[in-house]
Order: sequence, then structure tokens, then C-alpha cells
Amino acid sequence: MSSADHPGTGAPAAPHAQPAPFAPSAQTSLLTDRYELTMLQAALADGTADRHCLFEVFTRRLPAGRRYGVLAGTGRVLESLATFRFTDLELDWLREARVVDERTLDYLAGYRFTGSITGYAEGDVFFPQSPVMVVEGTFAEAVLLETLILSILNYDSAVASAASRMTSAAVDRPCLEMGSRRASETAAVAAARAAAVAGFAGTSNLEAGRRYGIDTIGTAAHAFTLLHDDEPSAFAAQVASLGVGTTLLVDTYDVRQGVRNAVAAAGTDLGAVRLDSGDLGIQAVEVRKQLDGLGATGTRITVTSDLDEYAIAALAAAPVDSYGVGTSLVTGSGAPTCGMVYKLVARSDADGVLQPVAKASTLKTSTGGRKSAARLFGDDGRAVAEVLVTGADDVVSAWEPGDDEDLRPLHVPLVVDGAVDSRWIGAYGVHNATQRHAEARAELPRGARRLSAGDPALPTVTRRVD
Amino acid sequence: MSSADHPGTGAPAAPHAQPAPFAPSAQTSLLTDRYELTMLQAALADGTADRHCLFEVFTRRLPAGRRYGVLAGTGRVLESLATFRFTDLELDWLREARVVDERTLDYLAGYRFTGSITGYAEGDVFFPQSPVMVVEGTFAEAVLLETLILSILNYDSAVASAASRMTSAAVDRPCLEMGSRRASETAAVAAARAAAVAGFAGTSNLEAGRRYGIDTIGTAAHAFTLLHDDEPSAFAAQVASLGVGTTLLVDTYDVRQGVRNAVAAAGTDLGAVRLDSGDLGIQAVEVRKQLDGLGATGTRITVTSDLDEYAIAALAAAPVDSYGVGTSLVTGSGAPTCGMVYKLVARSDADGVLQPVAKASTLKTSTGGRKSAARLFGDDGRAVAEVLVTGADDVVSAWEPGDDEDLRPLHVPLVVDGAVDSRWIGAYGVHNATQRHAEARAELPRGARRLSAGDPALPTVTRRVD
Repeated sequence: MSSADHPGTGAPAAPHAQPAPFAPSAQTSLLTDRYELTMLQAALADGTADRHCLFEVFTRRLPAGRRYGVLAGTGRVLESLATFRFTDLELDWLREARVVDERTLDYLAGYRFTGSITGYAEGDVFFPQSPVMVVEGTFAEAVLLETLILSILNYDSAVASAASRMTSAAVDRPCLEMGSRRASETAAVAAARAAAVAGFAGTSNLEAGRRYGIDTIGTAAHAFTLLHDDEPSAFAAQVASLGVGTTLLVDTYDVRQGVRNAVAAAGTDLGAVRLDSGDLGIQAVEVRKQLDGLGATGTRITVTSDLDEYAIAALAAAPVDSYGVGTSLVTGSGAPTCGMVYKLVARSDADGVLQPVAKASTLKTSTGGRKSAARLFGDDGRAVAEVLVTGADDVVSAWEPGDDEDLRPLHVPLVVDGAVDSRWIGAYGVHNATQRHAEARAELPRGARRLSAGDPALPTVTRRVD
Repeated sequence: MSSADHPGTGAPAAPHAQPAPFAPSAQTSLLTDRYELTMLQAALADGTADRHCLFEVFTRRLPAGRRYGVLAGTGRVLESLATFRFTDLELDWLREARVVDERTLDYLAGYRFTGSITGYAEGDVFFPQSPVMVVEGTFAEAVLLETLILSILNYDSAVASAASRMTSAAVDRPCLEMGSRRASETAAVAAARAAAVAGFAGTSNLEAGRRYGIDTIGTAAHAFTLLHDDEPSAFAAQVASLGVGTTLLVDTYDVRQGVRNAVAAAGTDLGAVRLDSGDLGIQAVEVRKQLDGLGATGTRITVTSDLDEYAIAALAAAPVDSYGVGTSLVTGSGAPTCGMVYKLVARSDADGVLQPVAKASTLKTSTGGRKSAARLFGDDGRAVAEVLVTGADDVVSAWEPGDDEDLRPLHVPLVVDGAVDSRWIGAYGVHNATQRHAEARAELPRGARRLSAGDPALPTVTRRVD
């Protein structure tokens, strides 16, 4: 047999004229499930598209054993609204692919979200049923946003929820995000941002630095050492170009010799050495001793090999100065997406009166009606419950907290009549979300930060006011 | 206590002037780890940036228990090269953030990849150590692509690897991709594309349809039923607008009544009903019987609730016509990323002679030198081994297959001296990859398609020719 017997070697039989690949779109509008548009078409046809609707974003459960979730992505949702437009590029394709009819295309051509969005502040913690975002507008304008909002919140919150466990385990040692290569290329930017919200001190991802002002970090990989004739010449080149404050990767050949070469190249003011393989705890102790013996007592040790929150916790007693985290972070440490859903909870009827609605069959039930959310605090200032009230706009009055209790409403305005509140977007939004997360996590019951599996740190208590 | 005692409610104290959020970039060049650029700076300074280099992409292992991996994303890598440019937008930020020096910025301003890339055809299967892509060029031009290439291949291949198990379990029933909301918004497009490579028949993601010509699917969600006064009016509206061939979602209230309402609205030519909750196997039997009893014998049943390859296999005997898969697909069914790495395996020395190089310390070793890859087939036409040869360009001559054996080289040219082979990009690239995958999977040993955990379906055999 010869290779020619296998026509399927992979190469198509002959090159042929290939149309240019797709024109890039600057819009977010087609990052959307087809059924949002076909529902729109049917609703425009029968007049229900104008019904006023409330869609609520929440999750039915946390990943198994997790004590709390961390909301991230809110700022990105708001940023994406500005490019949720149907230009000729998108409309022409929708027409050509016969996705929807001309009437619907006309509607899409003029689409702007003119409704309102409230939600938890980005960075806040959440629990099962927490209404982390509420989108209000006509059915037509609100239903179109479902896929994009869920895509952003589900991934970003999955990363932030894992990241918070890592920064919690690291206590006051910096965690650095280095997972870009283990996430889809633009998801990587979102992951770096979500990690920053949950307290990561820096990222390797340059675009995350550019967009959100997050500190970027990184110096060299093993390839740089291998590029050179030997390790001393590689280290000399790096120090000459990046300064003695750089971080030298010392485990390409032999760690002990690597540390000697590193201090020989940079002197005792060497910024840091990085360990990327082996038993990090044992190696860190040996390297610390060696560095101190060489007089490099201020040289830091950073470790970066397949860390997750458990590995970080296990290194608490080791002389490690910072943690670089990749795969586990950007994949949510076992929970790579949240289960957030976007559910219609109320809509106006033919008379314009808002009516609660809910799916009734089997297990995937939900509670209809507008919900107000608040966190209840005991007299020690720690949170004791997540409180949801339906049927009343003023959650504090409806719940009537006791004298020793404090009830803090959790919904903040994000978009009012189509106008985005700029405090939540861009670099400033990330900054605010990072602060919010630090505060919200500090207020949780002490057990909330344990890494072991358990129940949600707060019970979700619902009350219906009629 | 009052709410005012909690300054951290989430809203910053007062609105303040917020700079406009980041300017969008049309380039892929900053989807890159910072250290690629700092290594470039140091290598430009000491003259090693011009050394000719070979970087190899491979994984050390498959996810636990998996029998094979599926390569996806190759076409997207090639598409992304066209926008891997450093325009003023990127350069200005790199300068402002002091990422690299002026000399490096000058280099980046003129950056074009002028090297060559070979690799497995997209859609082919891979095993531990399979060199699925080989990037060859100067250190400067090749090192910059590391992060982007790995981001794309690691995610896309994770999805395709899971998708292949699902289409395999579904046998000849169509699988439909519906996971956009459980993946980061642009990762969702990549996921839809990777699923198509592995045999999925359609996707809910509109942008994937626009970019890659993948069939898009979807009709309505529970929200559409809830929007209406009752289920009959919702179904009537949907059928009026989308036709009797549409798919009606029958489990918003009561499935039995839902099926009755569906056939009442559309007649016995109703295209399909969708079940999104409950025990799908039992429900499918009941619904099939009910549909047949109503005369809707041609109406199909599609199921969509938290399916993965095991759930699909468990429904093999149920009267289900298609499977909609979401979360499990876009998160790689437990393996949300591949462990592919981008390793320098050879580089020229000061005399211009190509030398194999490899990291030597601890467990993360790799094999230096250029590798040729081939798949070995027995006389029944089924694959028996993955063959890697170092030190010889002609893998067939180096291996000398026996009379009953066939050895098929696996590397195809993807980029030659900077010119992308257009057969691998755009919609045509997806089409070719889909074909390649079907063929490659069909050639695996029969046990390869079992869902249970086991060893890789093929052993990876390496030979060094000196």
C-alpha cells in the first residue's frame, strides 16, 4: 500500500479559488443565538414585541461545594451595548441566510437598547437565586441581549469565583494571572480582567493591560534560555536588557546551577527567580537558602507550575513571594462556566399591567415577579443572609430588619433609559469592582473562605409581599 | 445601624468624569503574554533575535481517560496572522506602559510573519507528543505568536475533542451546538466552529454562521411562551410567523397539554417539538406516542437539557431525532482546555547551524530537534500507531514500513514563507476540516470510540535517526 491509497491525507485534492475570509465585524450583535431573532420576528408580527418585560439573571446553584460566587463581567456587558448594532454587514448576512424577515431586519437596523438595567455591583458576591442583573424594556429590545449578557457574565464570573478562592488562599502574597494560552484568545482578556476584580495583582495579557489598566507582568520563558548557547549568556542578555530587577527563570537545566548563574549575572540585587517545575515547596526552601547564602536576601521567589487554590494554600509555609496562576484560573478551577440564566419574570399584559410569569413544569421552576435583593448583616457586621423580596420595591420596609440587624440593598443602577452609567465601565469600572469584591468578601461569615466543600456561606431567604 | 454605615454598598461615592473606555483594536497582536515582547527586546539587543528557530506545538498527555484528541483552530490561527500587526494604537500603548524599548517598538511596527508553518490538517486526531503544528522562522517572528497560537488551539481542540465524542455517541442523529451562553462571547464563535469540525450539524450562534457558513438553528425559548397570555396564542404566533415546519418548545407548563397545543396550532405537519427538562428518555417515548396518536407521525423530537456524550449515549434507544448540546460542549466536557505547549526544539547556533534544544530539568522534559510525524496503518486499513521520527525529513524512508503496513505523513504546509494557504481558512477550511475529521476518526481502532476511560487509542512511537 502507498500513501496514495489514502485520499484523505488532509490536503484537499487541489488548491482552488477561495473566497476571501469573512469581513471582520466591529459589532457584538451577532454574538447571539438565532432564536432571539426568530422570537423577535414572531413577536413583531403579533404585536407582543412591545410588551414591557423584566428579565432576571440568576443561577439556580453554585458549583458543587462552593461557598459563594463572585459577579464579574458587568462592566463588559455595559461596554458591549455600545456596539450592539446591526450595520449593513450584519443585516446583509441575516437577509442572505434568511434568518428573519424584512420587517424584523428593519427593526434591527434601528436597534438601540433604550431600557434600564439594574444589578449587583460588579465584584459583589452572589448565591443561588441572587438576581445579579435585571434587564427591563420592551420584549424586543430586552430579549436580544440574552445571549451576550449570559456569555459575558457566565464566563467572567466563573473566573472571578475561582480567582477569589486563590487570592484568599494566598492571603497577602500577590497572585499573578498567566493563563492566556489556556483560554480562547479574547476570553483570555476577560479572564485577566475577572482575576483583577477578585484581587489578582497583575496579568501577563497585554490587551487586558491596554483596555483596563491592569498591571502587566512577565519577563522570559524557557525558550529564551534555549535560544542562547548556554544559561549564563541567556541571563546576561536578559539582565543587560531588562535590568537587574528582572525575574530570571532558573529551572531550564539544573535549578541549583541556575540560581548560581542568576546571581552571577545580576548580582545580589536580582529582582526575582521563577520556578516552573518540580516540587515547588521543597525547591522554594532550597532556593531561598541558596539565595540567602549568596547574599541575595532581597531576591524574591515566584512559582508558576499548574497552581490552583489548593496548591497555593499548600505553599503557605514555603518561602514563596508570589504565585503565577494559569490553567486553573482561566478554566474556573473545575467550574468553567456559571449556570446563570436569563429568565422572563414579569411582562405587561394586553392592558399594559405588569404580570409576574414563571415556567411551571418539572424541575426548572423559577419565581415570577420583580425581586428586590438585600444582604442582611448581624450586629457583628458580618452577613447572615441574602434576602429576596417579591411584590415590594422597598426591600428594607418589606423585610423590617430587627434592631441588631442591618439590611443593605444590593441593586444599583447600571443603565437608565439606555444611558450607561460610566462608573462601571473601563479601567475605572475594574477598579471599583475590585474594591467592591474586597469589601463584600470581608463581610462574609468566616467559614465562607474555607476551600473545602460546603454549603453556600449565606442562605437565600425569599419573602413574598402581597 | 443604617445602610449608611456600609460605605461599600457598591456605588462609588459620587459620579466623576470618566475617560472614554478603551479604543477597540482590530488587531490580534496584543492577545499576547508580555514576556514574548520582553524576550524579543533582550534578543534584539544581543543579536540572537535573528537565529532561525523551530517551535513545536504538542501536548504531553490527553485528558484523563480520553482515547484521542481532535485538532481544531488551525484555520483560525492562519486567519489571525493577517491581523497580527502592531499599529499606532498598540504601539502607543506599549510605549506608554513601558513594556519594551524603542528599538523593539521599531521592530514591532514592521512586524509580518515571513516564516513557515506546517502541521496536522485541521480535524485530524492527535495523541500525546503529536507535533500538531511547527512554526519556523527567526526567533523574533516566531516567539511572538506563541500565546495566540496556543490560545486558539487549546480551546478549539478542547471543544472539538468533546464534540467528537458526542457525535460519535449520537451515531447518525444530528447534534446541534447551543452553548454560546455558557462560553465567553467570542469563544462561543470558536466553539461553534470547533463543533462543526467534529461533525455537529448546526449551531445557534449567528456569528459562526456568518463567518464560517455553518447552518444556524433555533426557534424559540420559554420566554416567548411566557410573553403571551397563554401557550396556544404563543404557538399560534410562532407558527404564523415561522411556518408549520418550526420547532415548538412544549415544556413551559405541562408537556402533555403542550403537545396537544402544538399540534392544534401547526397541524400534523409540525416540524418538531423540543423538550428542555425532565427525564428526556421517558418523555421522548411518551411524546412520540402522543404525536403519533395525533397523526403527527413526521414531527421530530429534539432534546436539549444539559446533555453530554454520556446522556446522548443513554438516549440511543429513545425516539429522539436530534440533540441540542450546550454547556458540556463549550467547556470540553470536563476538559475545558488542552495542555498544548509551544516549545523551542531547534535553533541555529552562532555559525548558522540548526541545533536541537530541549529543557532538561525535572519532569517537564521534551525532545529536541525537528520531528516528522506519520500515522501507521495495518493491513485492515486501521491505524495502529502514531510515528514520530527525529533527525530525518522523510519519515517513510526512516521508518521503513513493512509490506502489510502503510505510513501516511501527517504534516501539511499551512504557511509558506509568510503566505497562508487559503485552503485552510474561512468556510472552506471548516468544510475541509470536517471531512478530515470524519475520515481520521473512521480509521481509528474500534475501541477508540468507547466513551469509557482508557489509554490513548494509538501508542506514540518515536525513533531517532542519526
